[in-house]
Amino acid sequence: MADVVSLRRQEPSGLVLREVSGKVLRLTLNNPPANALSIALLDALAAELDAAAKSTDIRVVILAASGEVFSAGHDLKELTTHRADDDRGRAFFEKSVRLCADLMLTINRLPQPVIAEIDGLATAAGCQLVASCDLAICTDSSTFCTPGVNIGLFCSTPMVAVSRAAHRKQAMEMLLTGETIDASTAKDFGLVNRIVPKQYLRQVVDKYAAVIASKSPQALKIGKEAFYRQAEMGITDAYDFATGVMVENMLARDAEEGMGAFLGKRMPEWKED
Amino acid sequence: MADVVSLRRQEPSGLVLREVSGKVLRLTLNNPPANALSIALLDALAAELDAAAKSTDIRVVILAASGEVFSAGHDLKELTTHRADDDRGRAFFEKSVRLCADLMLTINRLPQPVIAEIDGLATAAGCQLVASCDLAICTDSSTFCTPGVNIGLFCSTPMVAVSRAAHRKQAMEMLLTGETIDASTAKDFGLVNRIVPKQYLRQVVDKYAAVIASKSPQALKIGKEAFYRQAEMGITDAYDFATGVMVENMLARDAEEGMGAFLGKRMPEWKED
Amino acid sequence: MADVVSLRRQEPSGLVLREVSGKVLRLTLNNPPANALSIALLDALAAELDAAAKSTDIRVVILAASGEVFSAGHDLKELTTHRADDDRGRAFFEKSVRLCADLMLTINRLPQPVIAEIDGLATAAGCQLVASCDLAICTDSSTFCTPGVNIGLFCSTPMVAVSRAAHRKQAMEMLLTGETIDASTAKDFGLVNRIVPKQYLRQVVDKYAAVIASKSPQALKIGKEAFYRQAEMGITDAYDFATGVMVENMLARDAEEGMGAFLGKRMPEWKED
Repeated sequence: MADVVSLRRQEPSGLVLREVSGKVLRLTLNNPPANALSIALLDALAAELDAAAKSTDIRVVILAASGEVFSAGHDLKELTTHRADDDRGRAFFEKSVRLCADLMLTINRLPQPVIAEIDGLATAAGCQLVASCDLAICTDSSTFCTPGVNIGLFCSTPMVAVSRAAHRKQAMEMLLTGETIDASTAKDFGLVNRIVPKQYLRQVVDKYAAVIASKSPQALKIGKEAFYRQAEMGITDAYDFATGVMVENMLARDAEEGMGAFLGKRMPEWKED
Repeated sequence: MADVVSLRRQEPSGLVLREVSGKVLRLTLNNPPANALSIALLDALAAELDAAAKSTDIRVVILAASGEVFSAGHDLKELTTHRADDDRGRAFFEKSVRLCADLMLTINRLPQPVIAEIDGLATAAGCQLVASCDLAICTDSSTFCTPGVNIGLFCSTPMVAVSRAAHRKQAMEMLLTGETIDASTAKDFGLVNRIVPKQYLRQVVDKYAAVIASKSPQALKIGKEAFYRQAEMGITDAYDFATGVMVENMLARDAEEGMGAFLGKRMPEWKED
Repeated sequence: MADVVSLRRQEPSGLVLREVSGKVLRLTLNNPPANALSIALLDALAAELDAAAKSTDIRVVILAASGEVFSAGHDLKELTTHRADDDRGRAFFEKSVRLCADLMLTINRLPQPVIAEIDGLATAAGCQLVASCDLAICTDSSTFCTPGVNIGLFCSTPMVAVSRAAHRKQAMEMLLTGETIDASTAKDFGLVNRIVPKQYLRQVVDKYAAVIASKSPQALKIGKEAFYRQAEMGITDAYDFATGVMVENMLARDAEEGMGAFLGKRMPEWKED
């Protein structure tokens, strides 16, 4: 446990808590009470993810939040303040929305899998954040919504992520009504992978992270990248692409080790860098 | 209630009943016993939707049906009569199928959300109609199928809508077997949003409509249009597009009002045109 | 039953058992204990499917397996042996992965519907095979996984099929953790259509096959081909394409017969070639 404590530190702004335990990086949104995605928080989180992308020690990233709200999305106060700007806020709005969209794409493109750990409300861009992570695990009291329509601001960027996770009619119901769905509905919709009682949330997420961290980092990186690329291709192109990926993966060191270990009935040892 | 009654009228052909209650337009298919989508019905429905698209008073459209069949799809008698034409019916078949497909695209492109209210059987192009609406709410005794395969006429146009609402294997099961699924299965498949007891159907649909009608019409229009456009893009393009939509939405009058109202803890007032 | 027995024969290699009953072709993987998709098995199966594609007698193909494993995917021993080749196995790996991907595309493109009948474990490319069939029916004790990540070889080609059958997060959970899911979860994910008790598996699959075999083969061929093509188009293009398909289908002999039979309240008789 010593290494956990020693590596626990706050990102300079304090808006994202950072904790490394073994090969798992836990990033905790820490902008109470709503964990609003202010420019400062988006910058801090992007910086942490960029650092993780370059790290060879980190195998899995957990994205958690402190307090009772996972994230309420954009910082409406911050946005509204900029209506006084000469351009009525246009430049600031563009910066905010672009930073947020880029953060979601960064999660998609991160070599490591990202698990959202949700206990509480995930709304608007907060819901988008959940939908953008590779996996999502939540407590049974967690709730989800895309309520922009209630304030005249349709959740157009959140819907990019939500409509790629859920069926169309279900995504549309969230977007058009703005109403809040419970954890069970979110699982039915495809927004979360698993629901756990509150007292076990961290334990279950840590177990998922440990399982994934035990795999070949080379294979995880190859596979996650290929997943999102092939998802946007026609099936013939997707097979051409994935066939190439598969052959290179077979020739890589970890597959040789892994296949040999499997046939030899021993544990594989992955390349560490 | 006076305005409901006064605005209740029949579309000239009588094939589509039209009722306006507040900001909600209810269109009822009225071509008993099967509400077949004859040319006359398709024309009448398209005319109503075109008028709704131009209206600034209508915020939500409900698509309902009289009788025990929501719709059995194309009018087979009408189609068959035209086999006697010089071209064996080709021109008439093209007209029918194209009108029907255009109607589905019109629903997709309508600025207002469209809710299907189903009590009974929705089959072939009738099932396509359900799948094409933004939301669908049905009674627990409603049933759904794409049975073209039973008459040698695969439901190829219905599958465009059904396969975009449901998973592939589930859509394929409906299309290949032609068998009828119950409301619960339709909900599992993603074809409907909600199942209600018959006696509450209209009440629940009206409530959904009222909830949506209370939102900013500007935001609903922006969002619905963006939804179907981004759904067909790669994720990077989708975010570029949605970021632009979001910024314009933030600068629009209703978002300024809505965000201000939210921060000021008061009810927003939407622009009426 | 005489025709069943008389038509039962083994494909020369014995790796695929072939049985014709009426209009239904049953192909049984027979490479115990794991029904590994060796080059020989892939070749044998492709040859059977190619022959079926050309047959006018076969209306439905069932893909089953002998033993307790539906299929464990690629033959790891065979692949590993070729690491001793001058090119470290590259050419052989390419051949194996390409043959396997082509087999999946052949299933997609086969004029006849293909039903997977699963009783046991379907893993890696074996799971891909299930995901690639048009329909899948399994016993309640069947299990599914994409465990490549456990041996440093991410299931990149299986994910092409799995991610087109299931929601993204659910596909990702299978791919990143490599863990095994039960039949019920597979149904929730969209990987299978139906779960039946072991003693009824064959009976239910045969019934599905008989139902489909009773339809117009012309309509099934037109519809299945159109399904996968339109699935990759934008909705406007999909409707243009499907409208053309529908009109040609209406003009074809079986639709004329089927529509006439329906209106005349008699059973249709399909064209046999």
